[in-house]
Amino acid sequence: MEINIGKQNSHKIFFFKCPSCGLSYSTALPSFIKKELPKIVDINSKKLEGAFKRGNLKYYDSQGVEAIQFRKRIGKIESGTMICFGDKIEIIRGFPKIRRTLMLNPALKNHFADEVAVEEKMNGYNVRIALVNNKITAFTRGGYICPYTTKKAPEIMDLTDFFTDNPEIVICGEMVGTENPYVTHYYPEIGSLGFRIFDLREKVSNKPLTIDEKFETLERYGLPPVKLLGIFDVEDAPEKIMGIVKKLGEADREGVVMKDPGMKITPLKYTSSKAHADELEYAFSYPFEFGRSFFFSRVIREGFQAYELEESWEELEERAQRLGESILYPMLDMIKHVSGGEVASEDLVIHVDSYEDAAEFVRHLRDLGVVATLLEFDHGKAVIRRIHQSTSDRITNYLRGGLY
Amino acid sequence: MEINIGKQNSHKIFFFKCPSCGLSYSTALPSFIKKELPKIVDINSKKLEGAFKRGNLKYYDSQGVEAIQFRKRIGKIESGTMICFGDKIEIIRGFPKIRRTLMLNPALKNHFADEVAVEEKMNGYNVRIALVNNKITAFTRGGYICPYTTKKAPEIMDLTDFFTDNPEIVICGEMVGTENPYVTHYYPEIGSLGFRIFDLREKVSNKPLTIDEKFETLERYGLPPVKLLGIFDVEDAPEKIMGIVKKLGEADREGVVMKDPGMKITPLKYTSSKAHADELEYAFSYPFEFGRSFFFSRVIREGFQAYELEESWEELEERAQRLGESILYPMLDMIKHVSGGEVASEDLVIHVDSYEDAAEFVRHLRDLGVVATLLEFDHGKAVIRRIHQSTSDRITNYLRGGLY
Repeated sequence: MEINIGKQNSHKIFFFKCPSCGLSYSTALPSFIKKELPKIVDINSKKLEGAFKRGNLKYYDSQGVEAIQFRKRIGKIESGTMICFGDKIEIIRGFPKIRRTLMLNPALKNHFADEVAVEEKMNGYNVRIALVNNKITAFTRGGYICPYTTKKAPEIMDLTDFFTDNPEIVICGEMVGTENPYVTHYYPEIGSLGFRIFDLREKVSNKPLTIDEKFETLERYGLPPVKLLGIFDVEDAPEKIMGIVKKLGEADREGVVMKDPGMKITPLKYTSSKAHADELEYAFSYPFEFGRSFFFSRVIREGFQAYELEESWEELEERAQRLGESILYPMLDMIKHVSGGEVASEDLVIHVDSYEDAAEFVRHLRDLGVVATLLEFDHGKAVIRRIHQSTSDRITNYLRGGLY
Repeated sequence: MEINIGKQNSHKIFFFKCPSCGLSYSTALPSFIKKELPKIVDINSKKLEGAFKRGNLKYYDSQGVEAIQFRKRIGKIESGTMICFGDKIEIIRGFPKIRRTLMLNPALKNHFADEVAVEEKMNGYNVRIALVNNKITAFTRGGYICPYTTKKAPEIMDLTDFFTDNPEIVICGEMVGTENPYVTHYYPEIGSLGFRIFDLREKVSNKPLTIDEKFETLERYGLPPVKLLGIFDVEDAPEKIMGIVKKLGEADREGVVMKDPGMKITPLKYTSSKAHADELEYAFSYPFEFGRSFFFSRVIREGFQAYELEESWEELEERAQRLGESILYPMLDMIKHVSGGEVASEDLVIHVDSYEDAAEFVRHLRDLGVVATLLEFDHGKAVIRRIHQSTSDRITNYLRGGLY
């Protein structure tokens, strides 16, 4: 996979940044995609060129890293995969999509071998941390390098020893807490900002360490793992896990990821009713941004969970109430909010070292297509306002008597 | 608009039915669309040919009527419009889409002049009845000729005098009751099957009679109109109508259509919370057929209605409960149903004269893309089973542990 400096330098010339528009395409890029990339990712060049034309494969140049970004899954290469051009070509594979079961029983028995390791699924944002050009770099799920996470992760955890010994390993984890710019959720043991690691994977192959190897390694380097909630015989797993998920929900926590201890079988996820309600509540605070896409799958999960739990009439009534309120109340609050002449927006708070850091992060959000402005900056505390334009515009229109 | 027999006969040759496959396209059809249709509907031939290629304009041959069917709106010609080739060309325009207001106040003041006529919107299926080849013919919203409705409408109402005197008028109304194959809803004053007329419109132009003309005409011919619930000054209309809609909802009725008494301004509709819940309940009995498409708009309606009504905490809690139950309960019932090895289906009951009539109606449903079978036929009572395949298949799959 290594490519000597000479060859690597020759990549540089593939990329040409237009001095006027700043766009970074080049006539030469396709030739890299045609000639070298197919060997690197083992996908034929026709497919790759097609993906490049459709924009599913993009040239990326940000945070001092030039790369090829997989915007969509292509063949067996995950969305979010980054082919980074550093001193050598570094391949950071996308984090594999974890599928969901609607029925713990019989799904677990069908899917797993004899044992199931259950880890807590936390409600934050998925991050991959890896060495690129010997620099600790944090990638979002989509493969974007997040300047905030790249800065914060090494502050939260001491990663130097780990990466000195394991330069070819990618740390996959969740950035969690109330003070993060993507998904804020309060965890008593985390507070404002924390990181929890759920996978250690090899660069290039994306091969994960086994559950044992992972926890041993993390302990050795004093790095924070997600909670291991138990390893169960597949026969008892459904009942045990349903009990765990109910407790997690009562504690306002999201759910679990179920794994083969040997990591030979793909993991599955299962979440609490409280988590579904929370997500709907967020979605229907900004109904015209998120309502449509969020709703259906969460409601289906509720239906099958209620069925598997064989809930009593009272439990069902409570679940229905929770479902209805999580949709109606936030929407109503937002209509009232907009009726007062306000826009639909949410404020994100982060702590950074300088105004420039804050401004850079806002630029990063805009790169992701988020409409955001730096509302205030005071002694390192930055308040970033994210605007939800569709919700603002459409609610305003309907309040003025616009027709649906 | 009339075309003499000679010319009309020459249309016949435009249409050629393949003796083997039964398909009715012909190389000559486009020449009619190119040459005559543009003059008839005042749309340029390019646009019409494009629509024909995309299948938005189709040759129709069923129930002894050859026609051109508008599957989608084209220019100002409504979806459901039928250009029928009879002794002369008859143009039955599609029923115009009625837009919805989410806020009675200020929408009504913006939209209407000084007065608003309020008619009850009934929960059945939209039908247009017109003379084609001097035969009383009933068209569904989409423009299909429904053999059942064509047979029943003249049995329910004496239409002969009306059409003798008004051959150029189209009767637009709702077929309602528990014994109809499309939308069954119980109305005490209707029972099994009834018809209520809401518009009288001219063929070709689609121009409606005024509210007064309509009710006078219907009374003269003893034909059943929808209920006129009042004519209000636009200033008081919102409050008055909200009161009416609340009462309608309590009586398990759908809502209202608001019209300019002179019919110079397009009507608007507004519906009760009970109606939204009923529709969601139906949709989530067959979640994988209807859930996704039904859900969002109905929830938005609930949000704005709750806002406009300035509901108390208790009223909101009740609305949320109703919303949650209308989604969760039918879905849970269907999961249980399918877990028992049953398929997701609904049985429609109609009364017809003969087994052949029932079989013909089932064929008609299949033409509409509905999966239906004649379950039983006994002394004119036909039970038709409509199968919802996606819901059956997907629930079965998830119950067996299939991943989402």
